[in-house]
Amino acid sequence: MTPDEFRRYGKQVIDWIADYHEKIESYPVLSQVRPGEVAAGLPDHPPERGEGFDALLADLDRVIMPGITHWQHPGFFAYFPSNVSGPAILGDLLSAGIGIQGMLWATSPACTELETRVLDWLAELLDLPARFRSDGGGRDGGGRDGGGRDGGGAVGGGVIQDSASSACLVAILAALERAGGGAAARAGIARRYTLYVSSQTHSSLEKAARITGIGAANVRVVDVDPVTLAMDPAHLDALLTEDTAAGAVPVLVCATVGTTSTTAIDPVPEIGAVCRDHGVWLHVDAAYAGAAAVCPEFRWINAGMEEYADSYATNPHKWLLTNFDCTALWVADRQPLIGALSILPEYLRNTATTSGEVIDYRDWQISLGRRFRALKLWSVIRWYGAEGLREHIRTGVGLARDLAGWIRDDPDFELFEDPTFGLVCFRPRWEGLPDEEADAATLSLMERLNASGDLYLTHTKARGRVLLRLAVGGPATVDRHVRTAWERVRQEAGQVPVGR
Amino acid sequence: MTPDEFRRYGKQVIDWIADYHEKIESYPVLSQVRPGEVAAGLPDHPPERGEGFDALLADLDRVIMPGITHWQHPGFFAYFPSNVSGPAILGDLLSAGIGIQGMLWATSPACTELETRVLDWLAELLDLPARFRSDGGGRDGGGRDGGGRDGGGAVGGGVIQDSASSACLVAILAALERAGGGAAARAGIARRYTLYVSSQTHSSLEKAARITGIGAANVRVVDVDPVTLAMDPAHLDALLTEDTAAGAVPVLVCATVGTTSTTAIDPVPEIGAVCRDHGVWLHVDAAYAGAAAVCPEFRWINAGMEEYADSYATNPHKWLLTNFDCTALWVADRQPLIGALSILPEYLRNTATTSGEVIDYRDWQISLGRRFRALKLWSVIRWYGAEGLREHIRTGVGLARDLAGWIRDDPDFELFEDPTFGLVCFRPRWEGLPDEEADAATLSLMERLNASGDLYLTHTKARGRVLLRLAVGGPATVDRHVRTAWERVRQEAGQVPVGR
Repeated sequence: MTPDEFRRYGKQVIDWIADYHEKIESYPVLSQVRPGEVAAGLPDHPPERGEGFDALLADLDRVIMPGITHWQHPGFFAYFPSNVSGPAILGDLLSAGIGIQGMLWATSPACTELETRVLDWLAELLDLPARFRSDGGGRDGGGRDGGGRDGGGAVGGGVIQDSASSACLVAILAALERAGGGAAARAGIARRYTLYVSSQTHSSLEKAARITGIGAANVRVVDVDPVTLAMDPAHLDALLTEDTAAGAVPVLVCATVGTTSTTAIDPVPEIGAVCRDHGVWLHVDAAYAGAAAVCPEFRWINAGMEEYADSYATNPHKWLLTNFDCTALWVADRQPLIGALSILPEYLRNTATTSGEVIDYRDWQISLGRRFRALKLWSVIRWYGAEGLREHIRTGVGLARDLAGWIRDDPDFELFEDPTFGLVCFRPRWEGLPDEEADAATLSLMERLNASGDLYLTHTKARGRVLLRLAVGGPATVDRHVRTAWERVRQEAGQVPVGR
Repeated sequence: MTPDEFRRYGKQVIDWIADYHEKIESYPVLSQVRPGEVAAGLPDHPPERGEGFDALLADLDRVIMPGITHWQHPGFFAYFPSNVSGPAILGDLLSAGIGIQGMLWATSPACTELETRVLDWLAELLDLPARFRSDGGGRDGGGRDGGGRDGGGAVGGGVIQDSASSACLVAILAALERAGGGAAARAGIARRYTLYVSSQTHSSLEKAARITGIGAANVRVVDVDPVTLAMDPAHLDALLTEDTAAGAVPVLVCATVGTTSTTAIDPVPEIGAVCRDHGVWLHVDAAYAGAAAVCPEFRWINAGMEEYADSYATNPHKWLLTNFDCTALWVADRQPLIGALSILPEYLRNTATTSGEVIDYRDWQISLGRRFRALKLWSVIRWYGAEGLREHIRTGVGLARDLAGWIRDDPDFELFEDPTFGLVCFRPRWEGLPDEEADAATLSLMERLNASGDLYLTHTKARGRVLLRLAVGGPATVDRHVRTAWERVRQEAGQVPVGR
């Protein structure tokens, strides 16, 4: 493709994207295709000769778009939001256009240094502990800090991962390195290592236990408070004591700030104190809710971090206007991470790495190769500023509270809990129906709403009951969309055949 | 950012990228900044108020670009190429603009179905075994195949990973599942599992051994032929026999087609026969060289795949015009992969998943979330067609052969071997210098060339000597760039102070 063709088609694509977002409400939120329908619209074989780009754009509209579930639709309330924004798209476009590999500092110093700095910025925006910053929070004293080794002997720092799944996997590997002195990485897992989660912890922890060879059976499930669903520190203490006595090596406790199911919040200060007593790594997973701390009124969610957290992850790609993939992971001490993941073959040796003055982010992640993802986060923070980011969070929280108020005031519905962030969990009461039938009716209501194409929401089970999850926080979602969603829920609930 | 602002700035960014590629030769290939120099140009703190996009573009030129090592520069010959192309950039841009999450079929069916189909296309383009295709190669018989379960009971299929590191990690997890009946994932690694590589295998295998808890010490290093550096099947057989007798469970053998150091080729048919005898998973890593099989004259590199390979990976983001990240991984049987990586929490349950009619790619990778990466590969294959892809490979191979010819004809230089693909390894002879001094002089030559900014190449060690690696294959590299590079090498070699 010549530069001129790239200019022409590139501008067409930019317009296509702008048009898409302008007309997004004309699409059903949830794709209505059946399995195989998209594939059936695609040729069986690749083309022998190249085609023009117009043909691709035509097929995009004809074949692909019917198979898209529109995560950017203002009526998308499923899972958690997956924020997209103009500056993030353009930051990512720049990254694709420049086309560098950021595996080593030397393979493009700006990729590493911008990432380090932007994650320091984000740590400051979220008011995270100073020891998570590459300069230990001491940059104001002046001085160079390119590789993050200056600024008063700082040993922490941040890195962009593709997802919170990878962040927790990497945290576990660092914790395993610290707990076992590197024995597992060197000689293989040869004893019982244990991880601590609750029933509300994200499934990626169990997946990581399987990937690391720790084993799903060694994921210990700590009790939760039956009402708040928060992890019970006393039970954690008891399990750690029991496991240690039985000869196991506790590796990592995962506390969650804002669980996936209901945004429950584990008591980090109390959990942290238990972790310290037992010498166990504390990872705090705030994948969704962490972004809220850009607002001073949400800084309380960081309680206990300063004293106790060894690692912390939040996803700007969920609720902070930055396209997936962009998970921010910070560690208080980078050494066990690098110890776990660094391998230096001859063909990667270079002067900068040998000098020890620079960060090589390949040693902070699973893969060797890496994209220049800092560009999109840089672009987002600069475009919106701290002010704009706060406004985005406050809008989502405000709309969720409005919805919660309407639900609370409606005698036919039960609000699970006042929402802390942007997620509202609730269910129709289905008065007179036994629990099991009522739960089936709630699922049936969800299916009907999703099939209508007007909105898309998902479900969970909490305190033994099926609940609808309605997560507000998409950049395009405003008051009228939440009102309409609530009207549609009430309306459709009246149509669900119950009491057969 | 309003749609109008997005249109305006988006077109500016498109022009910026086109301009960048047009003037890329005006930059030094290797960034000349020192550690900390980029960081010093960035504000210490994030902005309180948002800024215009123009300010970002200005800082991109002022602060970031001096810290970029230009992987798309036609004088970039380091590592392996990391191909970028117009259609790939635009496919990726569409993915960013649409902003969906492809973790489940249900979260955007087109993301899954396009990926499945495009990887079937790529398998056909590379003439990979039919059992790697989602339809077992049987789509010509007609019928729907959305989830890949139709078409004659096919059980294989392809998936896009971020890198070959992740591909081998995932292959190991699947192999471990098959070898141990899922015991390691469930109960944790409780016995000695072993992996088989050669000294030439990519370092990501050892990294994966550490990540999976198999342990670096259980990576068995099979001898290589001292001349070709290809893995010795007889020694592999001996090691497998020995380890099995000692009670270890062999999990996976990694054969490489085109090693990172020198593009050596392991004898897959012979290695495969040994794997079959011992019931061990054979993973073929063709990260760089696999792309060459788009050309019929390179199909011989697939020898043994049909009979023996359990999994195969190649990186379109290296040499097939598709922006990083895009590693294609195929498995002959998807079941152990899914068995190793599938976990289904309540909030991800959905009708399509339960039906078993669809692929949920989250079960084929480490992370839960995933981008719509198939769009860029679709775009590349359609724009270039099979013809265009072949032409790209042939250009790189042709230029590498030209260079090898000039080196062979020059009495002051030693060609390591006739290049099979696009990588040429060589060294100045430094007549009269002892080996150690000669090797130091070769490294010194490399540093001087890289510091000049005219070209960028890296080094390796093979057969005990330091070699320069010059990898041709960037989309912008044409005859004159390779000629100039060779002239610069000869010229600079004359300037290296030797024989102190």
